[in-house]
Amino acid sequence: MTTLRTPGPTIGVVGGGQLGRMLAEAAAPLGVEVVVLDPTPDCPAALVARDQIVADFDDEAGIRDLAERADVLTFEIELADQNVMDRISEETGTPVHPKPSTLETIHDKLVQKRELEDAGVPVPPFRKVDDADDIREAIDDYGAPVMLKARTGGYDGRGNVPVESKADAEDALESVAGPAMVESFVDFEREVSVIAVKGDDEVATFPLGENVHEDEILRETIVPARSSEAVTERAYDVARDVLEVMDGRGVYGIELFEATDGEILLNEIAPRPHNSGHWTIEGTQTSQFEQHTRAVLGWPLGSTALRSPTVMTNLLGDVDEEQPAAVGDIDEILGTPGAALHWYGKQQARPLRKMGHVTVTGDEGTDSIDDLLETARELEAAVTFQS
Amino acid sequence: MTTLRTPGPTIGVVGGGQLGRMLAEAAAPLGVEVVVLDPTPDCPAALVARDQIVADFDDEAGIRDLAERADVLTFEIELADQNVMDRISEETGTPVHPKPSTLETIHDKLVQKRELEDAGVPVPPFRKVDDADDIREAIDDYGAPVMLKARTGGYDGRGNVPVESKADAEDALESVAGPAMVESFVDFEREVSVIAVKGDDEVATFPLGENVHEDEILRETIVPARSSEAVTERAYDVARDVLEVMDGRGVYGIELFEATDGEILLNEIAPRPHNSGHWTIEGTQTSQFEQHTRAVLGWPLGSTALRSPTVMTNLLGDVDEEQPAAVGDIDEILGTPGAALHWYGKQQARPLRKMGHVTVTGDEGTDSIDDLLETARELEAAVTFQS
Repeated sequence: MTTLRTPGPTIGVVGGGQLGRMLAEAAAPLGVEVVVLDPTPDCPAALVARDQIVADFDDEAGIRDLAERADVLTFEIELADQNVMDRISEETGTPVHPKPSTLETIHDKLVQKRELEDAGVPVPPFRKVDDADDIREAIDDYGAPVMLKARTGGYDGRGNVPVESKADAEDALESVAGPAMVESFVDFEREVSVIAVKGDDEVATFPLGENVHEDEILRETIVPARSSEAVTERAYDVARDVLEVMDGRGVYGIELFEATDGEILLNEIAPRPHNSGHWTIEGTQTSQFEQHTRAVLGWPLGSTALRSPTVMTNLLGDVDEEQPAAVGDIDEILGTPGAALHWYGKQQARPLRKMGHVTVTGDEGTDSIDDLLETARELEAAVTFQS
Repeated sequence: MTTLRTPGPTIGVVGGGQLGRMLAEAAAPLGVEVVVLDPTPDCPAALVARDQIVADFDDEAGIRDLAERADVLTFEIELADQNVMDRISEETGTPVHPKPSTLETIHDKLVQKRELEDAGVPVPPFRKVDDADDIREAIDDYGAPVMLKARTGGYDGRGNVPVESKADAEDALESVAGPAMVESFVDFEREVSVIAVKGDDEVATFPLGENVHEDEILRETIVPARSSEAVTERAYDVARDVLEVMDGRGVYGIELFEATDGEILLNEIAPRPHNSGHWTIEGTQTSQFEQHTRAVLGWPLGSTALRSPTVMTNLLGDVDEEQPAAVGDIDEILGTPGAALHWYGKQQARPLRKMGHVTVTGDEGTDSIDDLLETARELEAAVTFQS
């Protein structure tokens, strides 16, 4: 039985970027308070959260302070130090969700892929890379190109290097500069993702989203994905299998390839709300951020039913160099029926930095996915951060 | 042309209750910051707003501080002193929306009714009350019962006294204890309301809501209202006529009677987001709170299109005396598809105090309004503030 009081329960979040901000936005109507830890004063989440602790992501004193003020700890960045979080959780009695062990598994892409493969999750062929020979052997076995990946620290495609031929192996390895793995390049029909939630004794999956990347950065999510029903069901099955491997409650962003032969293969997992799930704020009955709030508190999960076809487009900094954040002209976004604007409150725009997003929802029956996509692209193209 | 920066524009709100809180919740995704002024430390809006100025609603120094920090001033309670706001606005150059003159008109129900009648808005027959004879004459003219109303200070039905017979006139007048007016009692089919928005050079109306009151406190709003198409159109016409009389941008809650003969008559106006518009958060593309944010800033208004049939039910304190706010068991609300919980973060529960609300949305075609209403009533009945 869940009782709600004032003040409500407090979630301590390591990281205070846009994910923390949207988490706080979703928590507020539920009476749930959010405190974030972030090294940047006045970080994006600070506007909405109850409070910000200004400290580095691995600052022990800061995390201890956070744990003492919170009923549960969670994180919106994977840079959190799992050992520190584990120890502080034990000291303070404040649980961490997802579990730091899950963070550890996901942190190293090689460990992640091995554990998932062992659990029967379909993954592209991969191997550990100790030297350039391993890359050349992978090209022999999988065919060129292959994808060289830094085992740790990469996001938004950073640390991922396509290797076109054996002659490029040495240079590629040098550019990754650290422990690496190599994967077969998947010939995919489309990239899709399932936002999945692990609750106290239940799981939920959001409708399948189709993701459009450019320069390995997410540009658009289209829902429902234009996959067949069989492929869609297969994606949900894989997502549920992935959740079995994950330890601890919360939202997981599960990125998948739909191969040209219709197979579903795992690409990456994020143990947190994910950019490809931002569309759920308007598109479903319960957003990924409300689900994460409910899940980490051990509350019942909400319905993930689709409310209407939805397209999300990121607003990326289209600037050549860093400059104060200002986007104009937003009148077309504000004036378009079904369009919702989300601004992340970042102080500075940088090239390709995620500054906000726009969601366009339509009426089933009257608006086709193509119409919504066209509207979203027009709205994205109509604004600029260039001064 | 609207340009959005970090930090975004700031709205200064006199009052920091649930309306201010939901305004801040709606403003955050737009990058708009909210500062509230409220005498209660840690008022409901404080959790979400950038900051709270702790001061009385008519505290000049506090309002001046608010004006200096804000790009525009607005209010979520009608207790604000219009003369003070007018003067400070002139001193600081910070505009106030809606205009203090509108506040002044609405503040005195007699003045309000006279201005609206002059503008051709249909109102129930009414007259000024100086002594009990005026009430008795009204009974002669309109028939019993009549509704005696305090001209100022009433809300949630406080200050409204039905007078059944001439013999009750003296007692009724004494209980109102101040300047009063009397109105013909409208024999209504249902009470309805239009949430209407006055923008820079545009107006918008939300779909008609049907309101269920008990003890003159709103219990439920049902959308779409079960009125005929002709009556619904007439309600929008009246709402647009009311907006003509109002000076200044913002959301207005326009409460109407649908008389048994199908006529629409004005009941009350609130120059702010209104309890009978809370359903818009889930039920329409743009909520009343986002519209108020846009309107007071002079931004383009959003679409008010209905997303799905919706029922809102208030969670009122069902306690016998004041006690710390705690409501249980909320699991049924959290677990019901289409139900959304809103908690206002008040510290204390009091008899019939508005502590939160639940919105239930359905699918057009599959869920009838009756189904949604039944679900909403079950959810409301399943929780209690009694310890």
